Amino acid sequence: TQTPGRLKLGAATIGPGWTKVSCPCCVSERVEPLVLVKLGEKVRPETKRWLIRVIGTPQKEGGAALLAHPGEDASGDIIVLSAPRCTLLKATEELGLCKTYHNEEMEAFSYNDRDNFKNADNMEVFLTLAERQHIVKYELDGLRAQRDLRVPGLADNYTLQHRDNIWQKLGEAGVIVDTLPLHNPDQLKDLSEAWYSGNQLAQPLDSVNGYFGSSVAFYFSFLDFYTWSLLPPAILGLSITYFSGRCMNESVSGSLVTSDEDSGLAVSGQMVQAVFSMLWSTVVMELWKRRSSSLSYRWGTMHLAERFAEPRPGFHGDLGVNPVTGRVEPLFSEWQRDLRMALVSVPVVGLFLGLVILGMLCFYWGEAQVQQLHRDWDSLLSQTLLYMPSVLHIAYTNVLGTVYRTVARSLTEYENHREESSFENHLTAKVLVFTFFNCFAVLFHIAFYKQDVPLLRKRLASLLIVTQLLNQVTEVVIPFLVDRFISAPNRTESEDDPQEDKFRNQSNLPVFPGLFAEYIELLVQFGYLSLFSCVFPLTAVLLLLNNLTEIRTDAYKICNLFRKPFSPPRGQHVAFEILSFVSVVSNCWLLLLSPWLQKVCQEGGLSGTNLLLLAVLVEHVLIFVKVVLTVLIPDEPGWIRKKREHIEFTSMQALREQVNPSTTRFTDTKIQLYLC
Amino acid sequence: TQTPGRLKLGAATIGPGWTKVSCPCCVSERVEPLVLVKLGEKVRPETKRWLIRVIGTPQKEGGAALLAHPGEDASGDIIVLSAPRCTLLKATEELGLCKTYHNEEMEAFSYNDRDNFKNADNMEVFLTLAERQHIVKYELDGLRAQRDLRVPGLADNYTLQHRDNIWQKLGEAGVIVDTLPLHNPDQLKDLSEAWYSGNQLAQPLDSVNGYFGSSVAFYFSFLDFYTWSLLPPAILGLSITYFSGRCMNESVSGSLVTSDEDSGLAVSGQMVQAVFSMLWSTVVMELWKRRSSSLSYRWGTMHLAERFAEPRPGFHGDLGVNPVTGRVEPLFSEWQRDLRMALVSVPVVGLFLGLVILGMLCFYWGEAQVQQLHRDWDSLLSQTLLYMPSVLHIAYTNVLGTVYRTVARSLTEYENHREESSFENHLTAKVLVFTFFNCFAVLFHIAFYKQDVPLLRKRLASLLIVTQLLNQVTEVVIPFLVDRFISAPNRTESEDDPQEDKFRNQSNLPVFPGLFAEYIELLVQFGYLSLFSCVFPLTAVLLLLNNLTEIRTDAYKICNLFRKPFSPPRGQHVAFEILSFVSVVSNCWLLLLSPWLQKVCQEGGLSGTNLLLLAVLVEHVLIFVKVVLTVLIPDEPGWIRKKREHIEFTSMQALREQVNPSTTRFTDTKIQLYLC
Repeated sequence: TQTPGRLKLGAATIGPGWTKVSCPCCVSERVEPLVLVKLGEKVRPETKRWLIRVIGTPQKEGGAALLAHPGEDASGDIIVLSAPRCTLLKATEELGLCKTYHNEEMEAFSYNDRDNFKNADNMEVFLTLAERQHIVKYELDGLRAQRDLRVPGLADNYTLQHRDNIWQKLGEAGVIVDTLPLHNPDQLKDLSEAWYSGNQLAQPLDSVNGYFGSSVAFYFSFLDFYTWSLLPPAILGLSITYFSGRCMNESVSGSLVTSDEDSGLAVSGQMVQAVFSMLWSTVVMELWKRRSSSLSYRWGTMHLAERFAEPRPGFHGDLGVNPVTGRVEPLFSEWQRDLRMALVSVPVVGLFLGLVILGMLCFYWGEAQVQQLHRDWDSLLSQTLLYMPSVLHIAYTNVLGTVYRTVARSLTEYENHREESSFENHLTAKVLVFTFFNCFAVLFHIAFYKQDVPLLRKRLASLLIVTQLLNQVTEVVIPFLVDRFISAPNRTESEDDPQEDKFRNQSNLPVFPGLFAEYIELLVQFGYLSLFSCVFPLTAVLLLLNNLTEIRTDAYKICNLFRKPFSPPRGQHVAFEILSFVSVVSNCWLLLLSPWLQKVCQEGGLSGTNLLLLAVLVEHVLIFVKVVLTVLIPDEPGWIRKKREHIEFTSMQALREQVNPSTTRFTDTKIQLYLC
Repeated sequence: TQTPGRLKLGAATIGPGWTKVSCPCCVSERVEPLVLVKLGEKVRPETKRWLIRVIGTPQKEGGAALLAHPGEDASGDIIVLSAPRCTLLKATEELGLCKTYHNEEMEAFSYNDRDNFKNADNMEVFLTLAERQHIVKYELDGLRAQRDLRVPGLADNYTLQHRDNIWQKLGEAGVIVDTLPLHNPDQLKDLSEAWYSGNQLAQPLDSVNGYFGSSVAFYFSFLDFYTWSLLPPAILGLSITYFSGRCMNESVSGSLVTSDEDSGLAVSGQMVQAVFSMLWSTVVMELWKRRSSSLSYRWGTMHLAERFAEPRPGFHGDLGVNPVTGRVEPLFSEWQRDLRMALVSVPVVGLFLGLVILGMLCFYWGEAQVQQLHRDWDSLLSQTLLYMPSVLHIAYTNVLGTVYRTVARSLTEYENHREESSFENHLTAKVLVFTFFNCFAVLFHIAFYKQDVPLLRKRLASLLIVTQLLNQVTEVVIPFLVDRFISAPNRTESEDDPQEDKFRNQSNLPVFPGLFAEYIELLVQFGYLSLFSCVFPLTAVLLLLNNLTEIRTDAYKICNLFRKPFSPPRGQHVAFEILSFVSVVSNCWLLLLSPWLQKVCQEGGLSGTNLLLLAVLVEHVLIFVKVVLTVLIPDEPGWIRKKREHIEFTSMQALREQVNPSTTRFTDTKIQLYLC
């Protein structure tokens, strides 16, 4: 039957049938569906009823204090979740989110002081959609068995142990198949119009933060910031190319006498470009830190609570008492993990780095063979064969990269890290080392061993163009085609469908692959630019063009082609600082190789040794300047620092007053000290 | 009259007359005199009575909750202070000190849970003497006027404003001349016997921490650790000197054919020394971080509370509302400070660096002149004159150093930093830059510009010996003589003297100058060793000898020649990491300069350019290795990390339970979840 609320897509209920709230202040007419839980097909109704009961139980009795709706068919395989006001507000304090105080300042939210925060009565304004959905997930992940218990409807020998994570265990048992945040079609439509449909230059970052959460918003902010910061090097690169191009034309057309001076102009352009890009990379990274701390303040994620992390789902080990928390949980000793890293991970990663070098050697060998063949035979076939080594090498590199990513994940899994953060750090380190090697080994080889600047330039240009095109195709065009021609026909949707089916459709979309690969891609870009741009000044221009489309395709992708991801509130994030120091070494060397410089020096009577000495000196001075710049530019703007200190001060002050009123000695009691 | 307690020197009361404690649990028979307050000569008795009253008032009424004794003569110019149990325990929690729990683990102390901590009933065991004295100082510094008030006995127009720091204001008004912690002669005697009287190798660091506090104990621990870590380079240096010396003797006495090989041996020894000292410096710094974190755990300073710092005494500015705390206090804008730094501090520091260079130039010029003169005249007078430039230069350097230290302090004062920590950082930075320049400029000039290794060796040896001797003389011998022959006669002391006079005598000792200069001295040492030791392998031996005496003289100095300093609890402290990276550059260069290497290369057909390339490569590889070492060696041992996390976890858990019992969802309430 058609329920009255069904057509209200924005924040519609899917009919009556929500569990009751336990506290009077949380009663509201409309309940907004936030999260969809998909159950296994064989889950029995009593299990579903039990689960809904647990979800609705107050926290102090071991539940999640959320609202649940069993769907129109009570025995169906979905549960729709929402959160009442009190749960949302308490979690806001627990997470350490900052919100606007009545005096328009941002303050760490405090449940006891909730009436002094703006909009604290209207959850849909007070918290963003992403925050509300994250809180639901946070409450579900926090569900723990209060004692050993049996789950009704499951096999008799299946019991949850005391303090087991209920959501995780039920997931492993196949009761819960999926937990996904729901899209809000109206908001999504507004967002996509403001984001990628038109020709707008600025991204609606606040709306992105509201809808997708701060992790996603930080990625797009970085992309945005980075793209705009490409403008100066792009303009510089364009003008250098223009002037040196004009000089060459002139020298070709007319007087050959000035050719020396002209190429001098070109190379001094190259030098300007090198020094500029070395300092640019440091300044951009520092400015991004400042920008990201402002964003963090703006989005209220400046003062996130740190808590002792629970073990990640895949973590296993012998049961024991955790020395930190005193709780019984699986333990895995540090030295065993170190042993696994030293004896398994390091050799395997080394092997893959070796495979990269092997591929490079094979490529050079193949190219030599093919050219020999071409010289000997000189036919159309041999002409075609000339392209074979390059094509094979690119294919090899890509396959190796894909295989490696899987291997790196298994290796890190095998290392058995306890915390999610440690797992991610080790995975990132592994992927970074390999990607760096895989992308830059050939370029470094050409630059430092072959010392062949024209080849480097050619290679860089082709790499930039081919890789960017490939990326866009694999990331967007293929998912788009798959979605349009394979998935969409199975997912016909009309206005009249029950709300529930629309929810179910969302769970059929592929899972969002995360932003890790996107960041790695940007890192590689940044590497090309800061390490080698002085030999190919148009790098920044190409990257700028690529990123302007990348913003739109990424936005389209996350809005349409994948499930909405959960996105925990995030503070600032790291910048690519190491690369920026390696770039100094690389740029100094590349400058040294420029034939013009060598010639000028020979003419000027500067020996090769002295030139080298000069380069070493310049390198050290530039590194020094970069270190000084890094120290001198504060990581957060002064006003943000003051705001942050204010938030820290007030929340610490509030805490101390609550805990121990006697230690606050600045009370306003009018005690006479003037006694004698 | 002779009071019964007078002869109990250890923890003697100075008779009855202590102010009464306000809570029953703090009543004890013996009261230990901890801190002496010296009043101005003209302070009137009513002011003294008022002050004693304020000191004894409970904290929530705006007092310091301490015990005060007016001395035997109630109108005398001293007040002796002690602290009751409750004040000590509450401050222990406020400071965030860790103490032994009943299960022998270290835990952050919590006043509410005090009965579960070992020895919490006996303050003289529970807290160290240094901690008790620091707490008295901490309470005094925390005294603030609760409202505008007049101090009796002072001029009528002298009023304390609301929230004025009472202790600071009374100090400025001349009421309080001095606040000093008192020595405990028995403990001091035991300590000095265990520390420097005998021939013991190990220092009694725990007793030092107990008596002088963790700042002082950390200094001596570092000195200790650093001295022992000099052993490997000293042994290496000795054997290199021995072997190369033997070779030289052989080659002098007999076959001159092998001299090439021998000098090759010497230089390869030099190479070993260089590579060793580069890696050694990184490893030592990393190990020190681990050691200092263990010490920090052992001494309970691992989890010190951070609090928003009050403005330092000298800070001034227009009154305004602090944006962080919302309190009315002097404000001084950031840009004004930056302006002062940029327009005053930087040029003045630059000027002094210029004066260093000027001195160096004058020295070279003078030396050239004198040698010319000597060649022309060749008399006894001209012979003596030969030493003049060196003597003048050393005198100039020392005078410049002394003047600079005063100037740096005034400059930093002029920059008007709000927090003590920021003041200290800026002062340290100024002094470090100059000291580095003043000590190393000549050496760098000889090494890199003159490229004269023998001169460098000679200069380094003389510098090491002369500087060390000079330091020991100025730091210990002179204060000792002054103490013995000028101060001591005015301070005749006998067993029969009233306790009060002994206390007064302590206030006549000079103020302890702090450990800043000592650290700077160690830094310079470390610089000599890591930057230049490869040309003079005996550096480590000389430093080792120096430090073995330095430990004893420093210990003697702090025990006998100066007042006992207050010493706030301190966590870990920074290491000299930048130097260790500069050392790579310096060592690679010095190796490159060695004549043998140059010769071998010429013979081996390696061009100068390629040799230079090799050196650059080695430099970059070594820096890379050092970075990897820094990352791989964890900054704290695994077991310390677990303990620290445990302390953080339990104190955070305790806090959350106190503040908001509903957010702790792991309570043991036996609620049935198995409902349906």
